[in-house]
This record gives sequence, structure tokens and C-alpha cells, in this order.
Amino acid sequence: MIVVIKSNASPEKQEQLISWLKGMGLGIHLSVGEFQTVLGLIGDTSKVDMDLLESLDIVDSVKRVSETFKCCNRKFHPDDTVVNVGDVKIGGGNFVMIAGPCSVESEEQIVGIAKAVKAAGADLLRGGAFKPRTSPYDFQGLKGEGIELLKTARKETGLPIVTEIMNLKDLPLFEDIDVLQVGARNMQNFDLLKELGTLHKPVLLKRGLANTLKELLMSAEYIMASGNEQVILCERGIRTYSDYLRNTLDLAAVPMLHELSHLPVIVDPSHATGIARMVPPMSLAAAACGADGLIIEVHNDPSHALCDGAQSLTPAVFGELAEKVRSVRAAAM
Amino acid sequence: MIVVIKSNASPEKQEQLISWLKGMGLGIHLSVGEFQTVLGLIGDTSKVDMDLLESLDIVDSVKRVSETFKCCNRKFHPDDTVVNVGDVKIGGGNFVMIAGPCSVESEEQIVGIAKAVKAAGADLLRGGAFKPRTSPYDFQGLKGEGIELLKTARKETGLPIVTEIMNLKDLPLFEDIDVLQVGARNMQNFDLLKELGTLHKPVLLKRGLANTLKELLMSAEYIMASGNEQVILCERGIRTYSDYLRNTLDLAAVPMLHELSHLPVIVDPSHATGIARMVPPMSLAAAACGADGLIIEVHNDPSHALCDGAQSLTPAVFGELAEKVRSVRAAAM
Amino acid sequence: MIVVIKSNASPEKQEQLISWLKGMGLGIHLSVGEFQTVLGLIGDTSKVDMDLLESLDIVDSVKRVSETFKCCNRKFHPDDTVVNVGDVKIGGGNFVMIAGPCSVESEEQIVGIAKAVKAAGADLLRGGAFKPRTSPYDFQGLKGEGIELLKTARKETGLPIVTEIMNLKDLPLFEDIDVLQVGARNMQNFDLLKELGTLHKPVLLKRGLANTLKELLMSAEYIMASGNEQVILCERGIRTYSDYLRNTLDLAAVPMLHELSHLPVIVDPSHATGIARMVPPMSLAAAACGADGLIIEVHNDPSHALCDGAQSLTPAVFGELAEKVRSVRAAAM
Amino acid sequence: MIVVIKSNASPEKQEQLISWLKGMGLGIHLSVGEFQTVLGLIGDTSKVDMDLLESLDIVDSVKRVSETFKCCNRKFHPDDTVVNVGDVKIGGGNFVMIAGPCSVESEEQIVGIAKAVKAAGADLLRGGAFKPRTSPYDFQGLKGEGIELLKTARKETGLPIVTEIMNLKDLPLFEDIDVLQVGARNMQNFDLLKELGTLHKPVLLKRGLANTLKELLMSAEYIMASGNEQVILCERGIRTYSDYLRNTLDLAAVPMLHELSHLPVIVDPSHATGIARMVPPMSLAAAACGADGLIIEVHNDPSHALCDGAQSLTPAVFGELAEKVRSVRAAAM
Repeated sequence: MIVVIKSNASPEKQEQLISWLKGMGLGIHLSVGEFQTVLGLIGDTSKVDMDLLESLDIVDSVKRVSETFKCCNRKFHPDDTVVNVGDVKIGGGNFVMIAGPCSVESEEQIVGIAKAVKAAGADLLRGGAFKPRTSPYDFQGLKGEGIELLKTARKETGLPIVTEIMNLKDLPLFEDIDVLQVGARNMQNFDLLKELGTLHKPVLLKRGLANTLKELLMSAEYIMASGNEQVILCERGIRTYSDYLRNTLDLAAVPMLHELSHLPVIVDPSHATGIARMVPPMSLAAAACGADGLIIEVHNDPSHALCDGAQSLTPAVFGELAEKVRSVRAAAM
Repeated sequence: MIVVIKSNASPEKQEQLISWLKGMGLGIHLSVGEFQTVLGLIGDTSKVDMDLLESLDIVDSVKRVSETFKCCNRKFHPDDTVVNVGDVKIGGGNFVMIAGPCSVESEEQIVGIAKAVKAAGADLLRGGAFKPRTSPYDFQGLKGEGIELLKTARKETGLPIVTEIMNLKDLPLFEDIDVLQVGARNMQNFDLLKELGTLHKPVLLKRGLANTLKELLMSAEYIMASGNEQVILCERGIRTYSDYLRNTLDLAAVPMLHELSHLPVIVDPSHATGIARMVPPMSLAAAACGADGLIIEVHNDPSHALCDGAQSLTPAVFGELAEKVRSVRAAAM
Repeated sequence: MIVVIKSNASPEKQEQLISWLKGMGLGIHLSVGEFQTVLGLIGDTSKVDMDLLESLDIVDSVKRVSETFKCCNRKFHPDDTVVNVGDVKIGGGNFVMIAGPCSVESEEQIVGIAKAVKAAGADLLRGGAFKPRTSPYDFQGLKGEGIELLKTARKETGLPIVTEIMNLKDLPLFEDIDVLQVGARNMQNFDLLKELGTLHKPVLLKRGLANTLKELLMSAEYIMASGNEQVILCERGIRTYSDYLRNTLDLAAVPMLHELSHLPVIVDPSHATGIARMVPPMSLAAAACGADGLIIEVHNDPSHALCDGAQSLTPAVFGELAEKVRSVRAAAM
Repeated sequence: MIVVIKSNASPEKQEQLISWLKGMGLGIHLSVGEFQTVLGLIGDTSKVDMDLLESLDIVDSVKRVSETFKCCNRKFHPDDTVVNVGDVKIGGGNFVMIAGPCSVESEEQIVGIAKAVKAAGADLLRGGAFKPRTSPYDFQGLKGEGIELLKTARKETGLPIVTEIMNLKDLPLFEDIDVLQVGARNMQNFDLLKELGTLHKPVLLKRGLANTLKELLMSAEYIMASGNEQVILCERGIRTYSDYLRNTLDLAAVPMLHELSHLPVIVDPSHATGIARMVPPMSLAAAACGADGLIIEVHNDPSHALCDGAQSLTPAVFGELAEKVRSVRAAAM
């Protein structure tokens, strides 16, 4: 860690700062420049509060020269992590298609969609049982019942299931779930992350609405530091001043996360854009820049034909898309 | 709710949409314009999924004409809510100063600061026992022990206490706490909000890092719809591309929230700016634009004299500030 | 245009508003609902100031039901515009690779790079003669001399040239330039746009740092309304709170702009990410989601071998990329 | 400037980088740490391209330890700059109220408002003659005629005038204008800034829509480096994901700009919020946190009584506000 001292700092204050830092067990490498004095901190700086240092009136700025994430850092683990979900592999060259409805609504619905997406090429089934909703007056999901229906759909199709957990207290209901999803709003629910770190099953961690890549990796670190290394990162769009699209899909996060970390990175084009017509082009783009998979909303209710334009694709469109994704991946290699 | 149909929509698709909406129990007021057809939906539209409607390919846009928040809406409750914390009143013309350290560290520290801020004019004591930290390797707070130390400080000074709850499972520890704080990262932890709605004690709800005012009010609505009307809103800075300041303090949120809602609105200038030197001017600004209170970080450790420039003020500076805040409020009335 | 009146608006104020709107030559369709009154404005509402209407105290909200952009709107011109630059076609299925250095530095440099990128598959040559720089102390480009060097490079290779114009007064220097580029910082320099609208040559219009798609289209409208229909839109990354990347490349803008407008849309992955290693994956992603071209920084100075990792690619890497881009486009069709 | 080298950088690449930097005339202070090598660059680093350095594949990160702005930097000019406009002083403890209509519409209008705002306590008159508009179909201002009407209003009232210049070629029309305003969209129109730097009259420089404080100061630097030191900075709201307000007024920019620079800083609450009801509270807040002035939209047309709620205040409301602003400033001192 490097601390740049302001040019007008008094020697006393500077001395005070140095002895305080030494008191934390750090070595100090002092470099007095023509205009600035720079302190190099040597030793374990992970406990040093950068914000506090930066806010001292004699400090101009502070810079970490080593990353604070370790478990998920590619520097220390050069090889890609491959996450295994039953026979399905994610990462390290293995691409995965996750598909299913926004919410689980009924046995007929979820089993029907599961069969349709399996036939269309999906590797895993997604479906929301617990739904985070901005308004308390909106449908909150079938909860425990929805979990049971997902298991029925798995039994009928063999597709492993991915579903969102919103709260620690619901954990017992997820015992038999294959992949636990942490939604964007819970990306920094640290107690939940720690608890998921004690499990022996894959966690799909979505990037928060306005979180940086470093914060996403630090949240993965919470899970991994507690012992669970089966983490899948997911880019799902960030909040900006976008006018025609719900969020801004940050696809450059895919190659950048691959450079920073060995974890697999998938993309959710359905939530990122909020518009079904945008899902195919953005899925192809995600595949082209190296994503390890896609999680896509698909519906299958013929009576909802009017929803053609919605966030969800029909199984037929999903099937065509799955094929094109494979071609694009091959071309981009 | 108003639905604008695209000019090139086929009559069949339009018919399908109308009958689907009627199937939801809504009345439809059809207005065929020269260039566009507009549907006015009459009845309880709170269950209608705007995102879904907006994503239909025949729909140009959708607009709610009535707010979806009810309990916290000033339209339905014109008078200011006054939240009572023991003898302290917040809102409706009553201004409150909340002060204390970022984290509870020891009995000596918290009792010392409590006495100092009380002498300097604080009405409530704040202090973190459970600390949400971006990194799993950073100090996470004294937890239960910190809660006990806060109670000791209250006993010694009579100041009611405000402290953050991060997780439902810790709720029993907070039974004797005066005001439960929901932090920015938990603003959309809906299960936590619902549970806090069943309590009979004030909740201080901080705006999330990148949440809109409507989302903040919908989160207040979660608490209130569950029966607890004692909610205090808190603006604490939002994430932007700011370079010299940690977050962007959105002070115009104060008069706007007052217009939209009857709930009290306080401001946290310490976290918004991250720099102690910025806390006094932004505290005065908050008071000038009508905030109902301030929550400010204050430290009291003489051995940390070097922290003068940090996010926390000394009790002396806090005391001077408290006086000026009173003068500015009087001048701004 | 739809105007929603607040429920507590007095009949007098409402009458005043209606007669004011009628005074602007608009027809009013009044719809009195249970909770709200809604005015439908009929006629030419393009002159109505939405911001003013929205700010009236009796007005709840305002919504335009028709787009304000006309010349560039796909609704009125369903077929793709094809921009012709000599023999090179852009849009309507024609893909273009634009390559060259950030700044023109010398004849040797620009001619060398021009030959190299031509051999590697470029269709047009880019190079900055006038450079917008945040700091007055940074290199501002070779200006007129740079323009002459670009022409030399064109003569040697036959590649048409694209270069940025920053100011109306420099226009005479650009008489013989093939494509005039408007940079992100000038996207809303309306006088410049109007003047470019009087020319008979293609304009490459970059999206501003924090501009919406609608604002980009309105800026294209400035050029087109003055008579020049040869406009190429360019997505080059927007400003967010990104940590590891310079800007956030908003690739979903590509299919969305194609839906809204008939103009060609190209992508600049070099400025969007600021990192050469990210240029190939993001170029492939842009091609996969339907971009009509790429504008990429390429350098060719063997003595700058250390710049391998910079924003600019070598001609060799560019050549490999150009081939892969073709394969990905074919696969994504 | 500090350059942190990646741990896996080859010695050859490192050598190449060092000799390249030495070739630029810089001294290099090499510090080999346990995990990282850090280069300290000594000498004039203002010409070093940080982005290029940062993008090299052997470079982890780069940090400037000295500011690149000099003329406007408080470090080198500790005393406040006082800008003189006739007898009116701005900065260094002198507070200024600038008021007037959004656009100049007619002699009757501008003279009427000028008299009214003078009576109500304004020090300068504002009014737009050249109007930057997002749409080419919106009113673009009376241009030269508007300038003449402003001069008439000045003659009648003695109030100095402030008006926006959009383009270099219009400069001759502004010869007799007291303060030239550079609007948000032109904050990085560098040719315009340089030309204004050659004048001997005050420039009011508005912060761009999404520009950082450093970028604002660098734009001031463009004017000052060309010889004109009479620059007034203006915070007018930045673009975020705000829902109920047009922009987000970044008031903490006021004390921060005062810390970084000796230039006066004023605030525009009218454009920041877009709602007249929000102008009084935000004006008081601006005064409370140390702004050196306010620029406020005021209208005076009795037939526009319905505009009470719009962005513009009536002279009566402005007059009351001017008084309160004085009281709040006194209380905040």
C-alpha cells in the first residue's frame, strides 16, 4: 500500500501517522520526493482501513498495490475453475444454457416449460420460487411450494435446477436444490454469503444493481473464504441513465472478470434488457466475448401468446438461439 | 394506468391484449387517436406488471397515473408523521441530532463518546455493532457484545440508541434497542423489512447505494404495510462517477421526499462524503433545505488525534456544528 | 401527448391550463377518471415544452406518445440507410472495418499504418489531427498538418479517411476529407451539427459520454433536418462507476438503435474499454449483436513494442481479429 | 507519478518500459517490493499519457501524485479569487444573486423582469439569447436580437448581464456583454474555452452533465492558461438515475471545489431540479454550504400565472428567497 503525503504536512503529523502505522505491525518505506513524500507500507495491509487513511488531512491519496481478493484471484489460481452441477460442467471451456420462467406458477407450467427447454437445448432449469419485488403489493412467489414444483420438473426431465434464495431462514427448503442463486439485491447481504460459503453446492452470484467488479469479486470472496469454491459469477446489467433499456448490460465485464478471476462468468440478457427482442442479439454478443453460459427467461403458455414481446422467449425462439450461440462460440474461438 | 399502443399494431393483437386485461378485472377506456391508440385501465392496477406490459411488441409505453405507495404517501396522509423515541420527537418540526462512533470498540470508548456527544447537544447515540463490510477480511463489528456496550452507554447517559441490524436471525439481540437501522445495502432486503414491520419500534431506513426515491418509499411501504408506521427515511449519498467525494449527497431528495411522503427525512453527511471536513458544510446545507435531523460520526479517542481529518468529527467540532445547525434552521424557516 | 392532472387540482387552474394549451393550437381530449383527470393533446405537440408542463404544480406527469425524431426514425423510413464512402458501403448488411492510430504523428507513421491496416483488411483509415484533450497541457494534435498527412496516406493506399472535426472554423480544412467525425464531447454542439447538415458528405456521430439514445438520435436529427442524411451512429462507451474499465460499452444500444432508426450503427471498442486486450472480445461481441462496423485503434511503430498492451492493437492482431469478426458475423446471421 | 508493475512482468519488458520513460527525460526511482515493483517517475510528468501507461500489459496501475491543474489550484494560490463585474464582486466572501428568465422573449418581457429582479435584490441579470436545445425543432433563442434586448434591459436597470455563448463565431456579438456563460454541453468545447481565455472579461463556466470536478477544473485551466483568470465555476446538477428530479444537484461539490481551487463557486438550483418548488430549499442549502452565489430563473409574465409551479420563480418569491438566503448565510458563517 502506498500513501502519498500532502506537501504542506507538518513533520509532527507525519511522525504521528508513521508511528500509528508501525503500531499496526507494518514496515514503512519512506521516499521523500521533491514535491511529495510517499510511504510504502510493507506487511499485511489487508486490515488497514483505506478510507480512514485517505480522509486524514495530511494524506493526499492512498493506493493498494495488491488486490484484497485472494481466493477468487487468478494471480494465485491461474487455471479456470470448473463448477460441476451433476454431469453439467460450467467454465474452463464448458458452456451452459440455463432456461426457464421468471416465476414458478403451477406444476403444469413448470413441467411444461422444463420439457420444452430441455428439448430446445437447455442444460439447467431456472425458475423463481421466492421473488424479490420492489413493491410489497406485488406477487412474491409460491415460496416453498414453488421449490417442490421445481423438484417435480427436475424429476420429469433430469434437468438440474437453479433458484434464488433471499433469506438465511429459508435455507432448509433449499437442501435439495442444485444451484443456489443470490440475486442482485442480495449481492452484499454478507451474512447470507457467509452461510452459503459453508455449503457444498454451487452458488450463482449475480452482480448488484450498481456494484463494481471489485465488489462483485469481494462478495465471491465472502463465499469462498468460508470454504465453498463453487461460485459462478453473473453479469445482469447495471443501473445507469439508460432510456430505452431497463439496465445497461456491461458485457466488457466478461473478459475483464476472466482476467481478474478464475471463476466462470455467465450473462443474464433477459433482466439486463427487459425486452425479449433484445435477448437473442445480446446472447450472441455474450457468447462472442467469452461468457461461460447464459441464463434466459423462457415461457411456454400458449394462452399468453400476447407476451411474445415480453422479457421471456418462447421455447422455439430459445431453441433457434441455442443453436446460433453454439455457432458464434465456435466462430469466436 | 395508461397503455399506449404502437401505430402498426394489428387489430387482433390489440383485441387479445384488451381481453387479457379485462380478464384481470380491469375496465378499459379506449381512446383512438390519429396516430396512436391509448388504453386507460380502470380499477385496481396495483397487480399489473408494468414491465411485462411495456415489453409487449404492440405496446409503445405504459404509464402509471397513480402512485403505488399508499401508507407512506402524503396524498393520503397530509400531516407529517412524528416518530417518538422515548422523549425525543423526530419530524413535524422536531429536529434530531444523532451522533456516535462508526463502530463500538470498547466500553471506555462508547461510554466516553456518549457522554461527550450528549454534552455537545446530541439527542440520540449511534454506534455500529454489526458492520457490513465489502471485504470478508475487514473487521465485522463486536456484534452481540457491541449491543451490550451500547446499552451500557445508554444507561450512563440516558441517550436512546440507534444501531444497524443486518440479519433477521439477530433480531432477538435488538429487543431492547430504541431505533433499528437498516443500512444502504439492505434497503431491498424485503424479508428483513417485512419482519421489522411487525415490531413496535422506530426503523431508520437508509437509501440504497443506487436506489431511486420511489424505491426508497416502496421499501418504507414494506415496513408500513406490515403494521409499523414509525419509519425514518435517511439520505446518505448515492453512487455516481464522483472523483473527490465517496458518494454524491442528493440533498434535493429531502424536499422531494417531504412532498411525496409524510415520513421524517434525515441526512447522513459522514457516509455521503467520507471526509470530516465536508461534514459541517453539508450538515448546514441539510438543515437549510428542511431535513428533520442529522446522523453524524463522532469519535473521542485522544490517541487518535491524527484522525482529525477522517470521516469522524471530534465532540468539540460536533458541538460547534450543533449550534450552527440550530441557527441555520431558524434562519431558513 | 398525455398530461395527467393531480387529483387535488382546482377547476380554475385546470381551466387555465386547458385554455393555454388551446391557445397553442392544440385540440384537447379530456378524460375524467375516478382518481385522475387526463388530457390528451391532439395536433402538433413538437413545440410543447414537456419540462415546463411537467413542472406545473397541478400536473402529475406528462408523456409523449409520438417520437420527436422524424428524419432518423425507422417508423417513417423502414429501410436501412446505406452510407456510401467512395466504393465502401456502410449499413444495410454492409460491414465496415475502420482502423488507424489515435493521433497522426508523422508521414512515415500514418502511411506505414495505412498500408498495414489495408493489408490486414481495413476499409477506411482513421487518425486524429485535431485532438480533444481534457488538459490544456496535453498534445492537441498536428491539426492542419495532420489533415495533409492523412491525405497523403489516402493517396498511397486508396483508403478513404475518417477524422474528427472539433470546430466550425476549421471546416475549410476538411473539404477533401471523406467522413467527418463528431466526437463524444461535441455530440451536443448544435451549431456544429447544423453546419455539418449542409454538407454532402458522411458524418460519423459518436454518442456523448452520458447521453441517452434519444439524445443521440436528436443530434442525428440536427444534421438530417439540415439536409444531410449520410449519418453513421457510433457507440463508444458511457460513463458509469466502472472500476477496471474506462467506460461502460453499452452494446445493447446497437440492436435498440437499429429498432428505433434506419441509420447504420458502428462500435468503438478501443475508447470504450481503454485496454487493447479487451478490444478483440468486444469487437466480436459488437459483430455478434448486429453492429454495421467497428472503428479500432491500430499502431505500427516497432519501437513501441512495449505498447502491446495499450489501447491500440498491432496490425497483426487487427488482421486476425478482422477475420474472426467475419466468421462471427456469418455465424450470427 | 507512481507506476506499479505486475508481479509476473518479465525483466526485459520492465527494462524496455524504464528506458522508454527515461527517453522522455524522466528520472526513475525503482522500488522492488516483496510482491510488486514500483517505479517513481521524477521530473515533468505532465506530458505522460496515464491511460497509455495504465494499458500496458506489465503495468498494474498508475497514480499521479501531483495535480495536473495549476492556474486554478489553491495549493499555488491560497487566497480566494474575487471576480469583478462592474461594481459587483463575486467570491472571497462576496455573494451574488443572478436572476432572470430562461429565454429572452421581447423587450417588454426582459425589461420588466430586469426591473422586478433588481427591486427584489438581484445583482446581475441573466437571460438566454442563444439556447442549446436537444431537439432541432425547439425554439433556439432570439440570438443577436436577444443580445440587444439584454443590453436595453441593462441600460434601464444598471444590472450587468450574463448570457450564454454557444459558438466561437458568435463572439463579436458578445463584445459588450458583462459575463459570458459557457453551458454544460460546452464545458469541454476546448476551442471555445481557449478563445475565451484571450478575453478580459469574466466567464461563468457550468459543470457538464456528467463531468467530474477534476474535469471542470481542467476546463477552467484551459481558460486561465490562455490568460483570463476571471472564471466563476457553477454547479448545476449532474446526470444520474434520479426519478423525481431532472438532475442530481451535487452540493458537496461546493466545499470540495473551494478546497481544491481559489475560484468562486456558484449554484444553479433551477436547472438542477427543474421544479420551482425545489428552488428555494436548494438555494438555502447552497448558501449554507458556502456557495458564492446563485443563478436563478425568474419570470414576470402575469398571463403565465399557470407557470407558478414551473422551473421559474415569480419576482415576489425570488425577493423573499433573497432575504432568507442572506439570513442563512449569516447563520452559517
